[in-house]
Amino acid sequence: MPFPFAPPLTDIRFVLTRLIGIDKLTALPGYESTGEDIIDAVLTEAGKIASEIFAPLNDVGDKNGIKFSNDKITMPQGFGDAYRAFIDGGWNGLQVEEEFGGQGLPSLIGMSVFEMLQAANVALALCPMLNGGAIELLSAHGDEATKKKYLPKLVSGEWGGTMNLTESQAGSDVGAVKSKAVKEGDHYRVTGQKIFISYGDHDMVENIMHLVLARLPDAPEGTRGLSLFLVPKILVNDDGSLGEFNDVRVVSVEHKLGQHSSPTCVMAFGDKGGSVGYLIGQENGGIAAMFTMMNNARLNVGVQGLGLMERSYQHARDYAKFRVQSRSVEDPKGAPVTIIHHPDVRRMLMTMKSYTEAARAVAYACGFAIDTAKRSTDATQKAQASARVNLLTPIVKAWTTEIANEITSLGVQVLGGVGYVEEAGAAQHMRDARVLTIYEGTTGIQAHDLTFRKLIHDQGAAFRAMTDEISALLDTWPADAPENFAIMHENLSHALAALMDAAVWLLQNGKTNPGLTAASATSFLRLFGNTLGGYFLVRSALLAQQDLTAKQGDGEFLATKIVTARFYATNILPQSVGLAEIIRQGAASTLETTEATFN
Amino acid sequence: MPFPFAPPLTDIRFVLTRLIGIDKLTALPGYESTGEDIIDAVLTEAGKIASEIFAPLNDVGDKNGIKFSNDKITMPQGFGDAYRAFIDGGWNGLQVEEEFGGQGLPSLIGMSVFEMLQAANVALALCPMLNGGAIELLSAHGDEATKKKYLPKLVSGEWGGTMNLTESQAGSDVGAVKSKAVKEGDHYRVTGQKIFISYGDHDMVENIMHLVLARLPDAPEGTRGLSLFLVPKILVNDDGSLGEFNDVRVVSVEHKLGQHSSPTCVMAFGDKGGSVGYLIGQENGGIAAMFTMMNNARLNVGVQGLGLMERSYQHARDYAKFRVQSRSVEDPKGAPVTIIHHPDVRRMLMTMKSYTEAARAVAYACGFAIDTAKRSTDATQKAQASARVNLLTPIVKAWTTEIANEITSLGVQVLGGVGYVEEAGAAQHMRDARVLTIYEGTTGIQAHDLTFRKLIHDQGAAFRAMTDEISALLDTWPADAPENFAIMHENLSHALAALMDAAVWLLQNGKTNPGLTAASATSFLRLFGNTLGGYFLVRSALLAQQDLTAKQGDGEFLATKIVTARFYATNILPQSVGLAEIIRQGAASTLETTEATFN
Repeated sequence: MPFPFAPPLTDIRFVLTRLIGIDKLTALPGYESTGEDIIDAVLTEAGKIASEIFAPLNDVGDKNGIKFSNDKITMPQGFGDAYRAFIDGGWNGLQVEEEFGGQGLPSLIGMSVFEMLQAANVALALCPMLNGGAIELLSAHGDEATKKKYLPKLVSGEWGGTMNLTESQAGSDVGAVKSKAVKEGDHYRVTGQKIFISYGDHDMVENIMHLVLARLPDAPEGTRGLSLFLVPKILVNDDGSLGEFNDVRVVSVEHKLGQHSSPTCVMAFGDKGGSVGYLIGQENGGIAAMFTMMNNARLNVGVQGLGLMERSYQHARDYAKFRVQSRSVEDPKGAPVTIIHHPDVRRMLMTMKSYTEAARAVAYACGFAIDTAKRSTDATQKAQASARVNLLTPIVKAWTTEIANEITSLGVQVLGGVGYVEEAGAAQHMRDARVLTIYEGTTGIQAHDLTFRKLIHDQGAAFRAMTDEISALLDTWPADAPENFAIMHENLSHALAALMDAAVWLLQNGKTNPGLTAASATSFLRLFGNTLGGYFLVRSALLAQQDLTAKQGDGEFLATKIVTARFYATNILPQSVGLAEIIRQGAASTLETTEATFN
Repeated sequence: MPFPFAPPLTDIRFVLTRLIGIDKLTALPGYESTGEDIIDAVLTEAGKIASEIFAPLNDVGDKNGIKFSNDKITMPQGFGDAYRAFIDGGWNGLQVEEEFGGQGLPSLIGMSVFEMLQAANVALALCPMLNGGAIELLSAHGDEATKKKYLPKLVSGEWGGTMNLTESQAGSDVGAVKSKAVKEGDHYRVTGQKIFISYGDHDMVENIMHLVLARLPDAPEGTRGLSLFLVPKILVNDDGSLGEFNDVRVVSVEHKLGQHSSPTCVMAFGDKGGSVGYLIGQENGGIAAMFTMMNNARLNVGVQGLGLMERSYQHARDYAKFRVQSRSVEDPKGAPVTIIHHPDVRRMLMTMKSYTEAARAVAYACGFAIDTAKRSTDATQKAQASARVNLLTPIVKAWTTEIANEITSLGVQVLGGVGYVEEAGAAQHMRDARVLTIYEGTTGIQAHDLTFRKLIHDQGAAFRAMTDEISALLDTWPADAPENFAIMHENLSHALAALMDAAVWLLQNGKTNPGLTAASATSFLRLFGNTLGGYFLVRSALLAQQDLTAKQGDGEFLATKIVTARFYATNILPQSVGLAEIIRQGAASTLETTEATFN
């Protein structure tokens, strides 16, 4: 203890090759060469960086945290070297188009690489995660000159990027932003204070590109009056060299529950007269541009949750295989056994394992849809994939992270008293995970997005495409499936029916009674996520059975995929009917409350 | 922020006077004078100590923690004074029989006092909680001389008490204890190392009475070979003055996730030749004696969970009433509102509030059963009450603390990004709570106790007495109950049916297949706890309706009791059918796993 992190390459490969199918990926223009060999090489190498370079610093960073003095942030020892190794290996530009200096690999592969990095050291991996968002934003919304000037060093990782939305009065309500920008020749002067800015400053990069939402004079109220500015920490000369300090200052850093080595800053822009900012996109068009970065970040936060679940599971499992305590309830006269033999411990570990594999499948399905939406030349396929990404983004973000809170807490429980002691490391995963359901849009915000924007807005079209896919699996159930697969079919059918009932109820009531929708949205998100997870695990079990029958692949691993799916089908999916009932009945009870209820 | 703690006197009074009935308490011999006036005075005064003396030190203790140097532990500043105020007020002996120098108040009242103290400062309140356990143990199992010599200063609180069970190889498996004791004249020499000893040493008391499980030479293996010893930190002379140091040493203290101001010690007994210990009870009869203290501690840990839920709820509620963010979904053109207006926030707060009130009712019902078992002169009533205490103890311990983990995590969520910042204080409640499902027997251990010992052992007799009580409420449903009470009747009926189905399944399968029982025990515990909580809340709603009809009491509070019960009935109870299905189906899937499943 702490036990080392082992890259979960076997399950990642199974999801990529069997559940998604590498052939489907290589069928997309530009990804023809991303075959199994390339992917294997990338994943193996990424696994090494994760386990050998990022992971050993995880508890060091937690214990020592960052230092803030003289307006400067110093990262914990070793972090600069690890980051340098990461960018020297070209990992920062992994998913970036080749035209911008990247390696042009699919998002799906980037996601699996980042899953391992987040598992290894979430507070450190957050840094390149934000850099990646800045790159994606500038690639999509920057003009040619901006891209030429700023992208190369962002892509190489020599410079960092940040998202500056939140102000003390503007958290979930981004439209309440008050930071100001005034035009001055070819640039703007930006002034204002931002809070909760991750990696607002640090010493691992030469310069930082702050992407800042601010308001022009006489801009309309709300989000429609927000403009987006690139505000470098240090101004960049035309020849690319660094110029003057740009009046951007860290005011303070937060003392947080977790992620101690990720600096969370209060940032002052323009304390001494105004930071120079460059408009990205159109005036008053900032929120749309920022959403590129935000959607990217939301998915990646889901991947953080996935990574932390995997890490926490491994930790608990390794401890349970090592710790001897009590006799087996099935052999009460035998010798004391390792606790992995105790059924309640197995139940906890299987809950951890099955949710983790379910979350991986859901996230990767979304990753593949991103690649399809970007690269497909078939307009219909492209549009469908795009709708799928929109639909799944709040699930990947909020469902994964809600279960990550539960799973990392179970990770403490499996260790017992030892889990409560910080040196064991299990508590850190729980503390690190706890912000994931909050930053980049709380679970409540994601649930609103899912119900109002993704379900009700298109009257259930994208949702039905997803449920049709699940129905198709159930309708084409192989006649030769082993007998003990029947419970998976049965419970997935019930879950799907419950989900569809709930969706119909929301479609009927949601528009006319937005309060009911808002009160039931989080339960709907959970029901949807649980069902999707079940769908992918059951499909995995059927594929594993095919392979077993064909005597292909690692028999022990394939048998485990089946056991895992059956565990999930019988321990998680039975919650579905209750969740649907809570949606139909519970929301009305919530709306009965008034402020006086809470006296 | 941090918002002050307000003693929840109104709801506590409702549970005592309406749900339990003070007349039933005063009907018990010895409690005749414990009427409403006395109880009101006690609760009001205890509320002041909690809110004015204990609560203000809660974040101080968390930030500064204890100090350990030169073998001595120093409590955070202010803790000694607070403890002194507590014992000077006579609170330490509140529930202790008058013959031992206590005030002889009912356990039920002690429980409500301690709920407030735990809410205010759980790490500090743990100290008198352990003292109380030691007092109860010595009162029950000490001989006259021991009681005379040691009880007075334990009861006054000048001395402390600890429980010394755990050793590195003996956690859940108490029978694996290796500490040794050898007879030497009228005492024993005790040697061994104990871990996770709460308040193993501190500077708030003059002396500490360690209650230590150890093994005599040639004692049988397992728990049947354990004897219990009183090992004072400093030996006590016959005249009551303090004598020599007794070779008891703190080796180290743990660095924990929470409860930073509660010292958790590794203790060495007899490093320098053996600590003097006095046998309590019979040789090899230690586990039975220790169970007195452990059962007391288990219930009190449940009360810690209850207190932390109340505290976390108040914190989240006060923040939600203060924080303005976003427009209402029901009035999208209006001004931004405090977040308590957002349905998803209300859902979270109501989840917190309704679970807290449910947990309070369940715990107090158990507290009243303790008093009845102790004081009733009716043999049947006494036996039934005793069986009820045994049945409810694992529920109060494990169900309450499992939901406390969920509730204190929601308490962070309601505060959003602010909740993740330690200064806000919400994260502390979550960290402090996290050990409650672990110490004094994990949830898994409690679930085993509930299923094997409390359900299956008496073939469901005590369980049926409880479910009969719920059935009776449903069968005698008032014909004039308002229409919107129907859903409470319906959902409680379904929950009860699911619970009884699950119990029948366990009774049928549990004995022949202990693995199935063990794998489903935690789900059964949750289902039972949820249903009991629903029963007490629904009964509270009916009582509130009676009072409203009779125009008695605080109308707003009573109306809220009804809204709260309906929320719980429609948002929590619908999980019951799924839980019963998980018990029937899921346990078999868990048992399908082997060690290889976890490769």
